[in-house]
Amino acid sequence: MCLPGIGAKTAQRLAFFVVKMDSDDVFDFSKALIRVKRDLKTCIKCGSLTEAEYCNICKDQNRDSNTICIVQEARDVLALERTEEYRGLYHVLHGVISPLEGIGPDELNIATLVSRLRDKQIQEVILATNPNIEGEATAMYISKLVASPNIKITRLAHGLPMGGDLEYADEVTLIKALEGRREI
Amino acid sequence: MCLPGIGAKTAQRLAFFVVKMDSDDVFDFSKALIRVKRDLKTCIKCGSLTEAEYCNICKDQNRDSNTICIVQEARDVLALERTEEYRGLYHVLHGVISPLEGIGPDELNIATLVSRLRDKQIQEVILATNPNIEGEATAMYISKLVASPNIKITRLAHGLPMGGDLEYADEVTLIKALEGRREI
Repeated sequence: MCLPGIGAKTAQRLAFFVVKMDSDDVFDFSKALIRVKRDLKTCIKCGSLTEAEYCNICKDQNRDSNTICIVQEARDVLALERTEEYRGLYHVLHGVISPLEGIGPDELNIATLVSRLRDKQIQEVILATNPNIEGEATAMYISKLVASPNIKITRLAHGLPMGGDLEYADEVTLIKALEGRREI
Repeated sequence: MCLPGIGAKTAQRLAFFVVKMDSDDVFDFSKALIRVKRDLKTCIKCGSLTEAEYCNICKDQNRDSNTICIVQEARDVLALERTEEYRGLYHVLHGVISPLEGIGPDELNIATLVSRLRDKQIQEVILATNPNIEGEATAMYISKLVASPNIKITRLAHGLPMGGDLEYADEVTLIKALEGRREI
């Protein structure tokens, strides 16, 4: 077994920690591990994680069902929810197009997206894939796929991260910040 | 003497390194230190660093003299020049408005900016102060000061830095990225 970012030394330290842990805690831990695999599934509408058929966001009648935000992974839904700004729905792709890793559009959760967009309600699709090559390529692919006169397709802004320093921004980010400058 | 980021231990290590350095190199180093203080001055037009009256960018006839990019420090000019995208002129404020540190507009290089803007040529002012509270406040102050129907005032885009990961973006940056989303 190998967990990301845990090398041999850390693994050994964690293993010895488990040995010293309270039996009940270890038992709860092991049950939680099994439960997560058994009970967590993907929402049949948006692909996010849920224990039911539909996730809590898809079920929530107070969300703006005219807007769908497309993200790579379920954890990106959490990141956007933490902002407490976005009130629309999500669609989780479970990856990005990556020819080098042999991942094409067919490997992603795109078919259900297309059928969701047949719903006349959708007015805006926000492409929130990561700001790197694969994320950009996937955003481009989906923007062409879902292009329709009735749907506004937007991309999250690229630019300087807040609280940062111009001096430490990399060239590509600075170029994007210049290109995307907005009138005050 | 204290240099930024150099504590007692590093200072000692550097000092011992100097002791072992070649005499000629130490002599050149000491001369360079004196020369930098003696010869470097600020461009009387834009406030950037130069050894002459005007800096190389202000002197360059091939630059777009219709656009002025306003930055906090001379080092920000270098950051933007590294992008090789911007072809306009600069104006260096030498700081930002910071009431806590007792720095108001009068302490900044703003008077020369106002006189530069009287020049009918200027079509766009790009506010490139840092994406933090002081930088935003300074950008706001200047945008009001220079407001004119003939001058377009823009701000560098805020959003996700390129190559990053949505998951690791802080909430404020994500909110800015959502607010600033652009149609594809």
